[in-house]
Amino acid sequence: MTRGKFTVAGGGPVGSLLAILLGRHGYEVGLYEGRPDSRVTSIYQGKSINIALSDRGWTSLEQIGVGSDAKAEAIPMYHRAIHGVDGELSRLPYGKQGDAIWSVSRGGINEQLLDIADAEANITTHFEHWLVDVDFETAGTVFEVKRDQEITVEADYLFGADGAHSKVRRLAHNVPRFSYSQTYMPQSYIELNIPANPDGTHKLEKNALHIWPRKDFMLIALPNPDGTFTCTLFLNYSGSLSFESLQERSAVQAFFESNFADAMDYLENPVDVFMEKTAAPLFLVQVFPWSFNRKVGLIGDAAHAIVPFYGQGMNCGFEDCAELNRLIASHKHDWDAIFPAYENARKPNGDAIAELSKRNFVEMSDLSGDPMFQLRKKIEAKFSDLHPQLWTPLYSMVTFSPEVPYAEALRVGDEQNKVMERIMALPGIEDDWDEPYVMQQLLELASEAFG
Amino acid sequence: MTRGKFTVAGGGPVGSLLAILLGRHGYEVGLYEGRPDSRVTSIYQGKSINIALSDRGWTSLEQIGVGSDAKAEAIPMYHRAIHGVDGELSRLPYGKQGDAIWSVSRGGINEQLLDIADAEANITTHFEHWLVDVDFETAGTVFEVKRDQEITVEADYLFGADGAHSKVRRLAHNVPRFSYSQTYMPQSYIELNIPANPDGTHKLEKNALHIWPRKDFMLIALPNPDGTFTCTLFLNYSGSLSFESLQERSAVQAFFESNFADAMDYLENPVDVFMEKTAAPLFLVQVFPWSFNRKVGLIGDAAHAIVPFYGQGMNCGFEDCAELNRLIASHKHDWDAIFPAYENARKPNGDAIAELSKRNFVEMSDLSGDPMFQLRKKIEAKFSDLHPQLWTPLYSMVTFSPEVPYAEALRVGDEQNKVMERIMALPGIEDDWDEPYVMQQLLELASEAFG
Repeated sequence: MTRGKFTVAGGGPVGSLLAILLGRHGYEVGLYEGRPDSRVTSIYQGKSINIALSDRGWTSLEQIGVGSDAKAEAIPMYHRAIHGVDGELSRLPYGKQGDAIWSVSRGGINEQLLDIADAEANITTHFEHWLVDVDFETAGTVFEVKRDQEITVEADYLFGADGAHSKVRRLAHNVPRFSYSQTYMPQSYIELNIPANPDGTHKLEKNALHIWPRKDFMLIALPNPDGTFTCTLFLNYSGSLSFESLQERSAVQAFFESNFADAMDYLENPVDVFMEKTAAPLFLVQVFPWSFNRKVGLIGDAAHAIVPFYGQGMNCGFEDCAELNRLIASHKHDWDAIFPAYENARKPNGDAIAELSKRNFVEMSDLSGDPMFQLRKKIEAKFSDLHPQLWTPLYSMVTFSPEVPYAEALRVGDEQNKVMERIMALPGIEDDWDEPYVMQQLLELASEAFG
Repeated sequence: MTRGKFTVAGGGPVGSLLAILLGRHGYEVGLYEGRPDSRVTSIYQGKSINIALSDRGWTSLEQIGVGSDAKAEAIPMYHRAIHGVDGELSRLPYGKQGDAIWSVSRGGINEQLLDIADAEANITTHFEHWLVDVDFETAGTVFEVKRDQEITVEADYLFGADGAHSKVRRLAHNVPRFSYSQTYMPQSYIELNIPANPDGTHKLEKNALHIWPRKDFMLIALPNPDGTFTCTLFLNYSGSLSFESLQERSAVQAFFESNFADAMDYLENPVDVFMEKTAAPLFLVQVFPWSFNRKVGLIGDAAHAIVPFYGQGMNCGFEDCAELNRLIASHKHDWDAIFPAYENARKPNGDAIAELSKRNFVEMSDLSGDPMFQLRKKIEAKFSDLHPQLWTPLYSMVTFSPEVPYAEALRVGDEQNKVMERIMALPGIEDDWDEPYVMQQLLELASEAFG
């Protein structure tokens, strides 16, 4: 006997994972995706071909019981490799020895999760089904199938896992008392490519996330298993130096040569790509509630689209799934209780990682090239090694401490900021940072704040 | 020769005023309103039948040259009349002697402005025209006329002055890079009525805004020229004491009797009205940009719907108009310059009054009943009298100082807050507040902050 019927709109990584956990809890699940099945067409049409996964993502996958198969294909990145304008390279570790964030293929992990979903008897997957309408009272949906036919799907419950541009969420704009915001960042982005060496090895250091921080803009590169790097150029959409202002081919050429000289040896036709591609916008979405009438829920980017600067988007979506997985058990399938508990647990964390991800653009594009910032990171790391119970650096809380909710990480990080501002204001800190009195002072301030 | 053709969507007070100023600048203006013409049907269907106007509104009307005819019908309110739970009455002046906010009939001022618009040769007004669609590239619009026919209106420019639920703004959700937010407040509201005495006089003090502050909820009353008061009950939508929780007639009766005992002698069937009416939600809207393709603009509530707790909604919309009036002259009808100048000038002020209006719920519903808050107001008023160049209380900056932009008022108000927190923390301030040393200390702190 089924415990009830779920429609999951959106067959990306979060929708697939949600379908799996609902299926394993005994629900009948219909998973509907607008795009064709990439396992059949072998063309992956999802956005951004590689993304960062870290401990929250892996932990959530484990909690749901789909293990960490995806990790086999993933590439650990242990530090930021920071490329100066002069081509000078510096390294900034992400955490302690062995801590890494992982470059994974979005398509690869998505296909793995779809395979797992398809193997469950009570999950059916449907591709080329575009969501057209939602009845927020009944959880009924209308899909357009292969652009020529509409079908109506009845269910007990619906989840919109349909991403940053979520149709379920946009239809909910008409639901009474639904608060929503969509905020564009000044930056847009295009993706560039660094090809592999002829022997399939990487042209740049493989186990690092490469950053060319240029203050108001930056280039980053993440390694792929096939020896290539996927690069992203983040640049203002309009203004004095921007996608809008760089219209002439010669200006674009000069822009790349003066700012990314060392990368020009590796990048594949960056000027051509820049001239041809339309820059994609970056935006944040925040809404509340995340559920309607105890019938329809939002999850993943559909509930909280963020900017990519903390590499936490998919991690956060997987955490949503893990939270639901726990709540289904603890509330014994009572969805009148699960929906409010879910949104109340996850909303503050969604808001926190949105804030953190916005702030991290500055950290990546400006501060990561700043010697004082790197010094601060070094002092924090040293202190954290000495007093791990008093201090985990913010980046490590967010990335390597899944037991610390995002909201808690944000709060503690702000307190740490105040402490570190006082330390970095010590006269002569540049020379003295390794002197015992600095650690002593930090210990006093940290004990007062967190002891 | 016309300078160009404008469509103004929305014939409320802001749309009417905008039509007038555009007409007077030589444009051909079509003003389109979805509702019937209240001057013909004598049923005013606009929201909330009376509202507060203050110096910003009057000044803006004067700057546009429609004078202050509306003031003849308006009722000045010089202070808050605060009704305690025990029926005790206290008065808190709004500003200096003679400073007043004005209770005006929204319908009355709307009709006056429509009459002025109709008298201009180059303005045509059209009622029962519902906006259906907008072409954001061409400023073309489609209206449904009297529910049975669609017409297309071409123009050089379009303004959406169509209020908090603006259709123009909602259609703009699909314009690339449009940031928008709509945020519901926990409170909803219903309107109640206090009838006039048989001789047409007011049952409560006429020249005051009456408040029954009850912390999480409140009742207010504004006087009308016909001797009645329009009352508004603000109460949480859901929760332990809320519109949702008060379902039983007996519970509603008990709610009114225990909280508004003195008003029960005057209110017209409040329990019946409460049981019958659906509470209306309160929400804020913030968007950017306020214009699209140098062709289509947003103005008034369509650009910045706020909550009513500062009584500044229409004032802010009229200021938008006054700013446009100035910019048309200074930029010599160059709309490529006017649109960006307009949104850059007004957006920070729209955001500031949104923030101030949110905060003022607490001030009205909680603090206005708090003796320490009233004492603080008294100290500020005294200090402001002594040192007017150093200190204008926040409420006075917002309400009586049209030369101070909202954003500046918010900034200065936050600085004042810090100063007053230190003054109110002085030991024995309740007894000593009139002692010279308090003014002396305030002078030192204020000179440091603002001198």
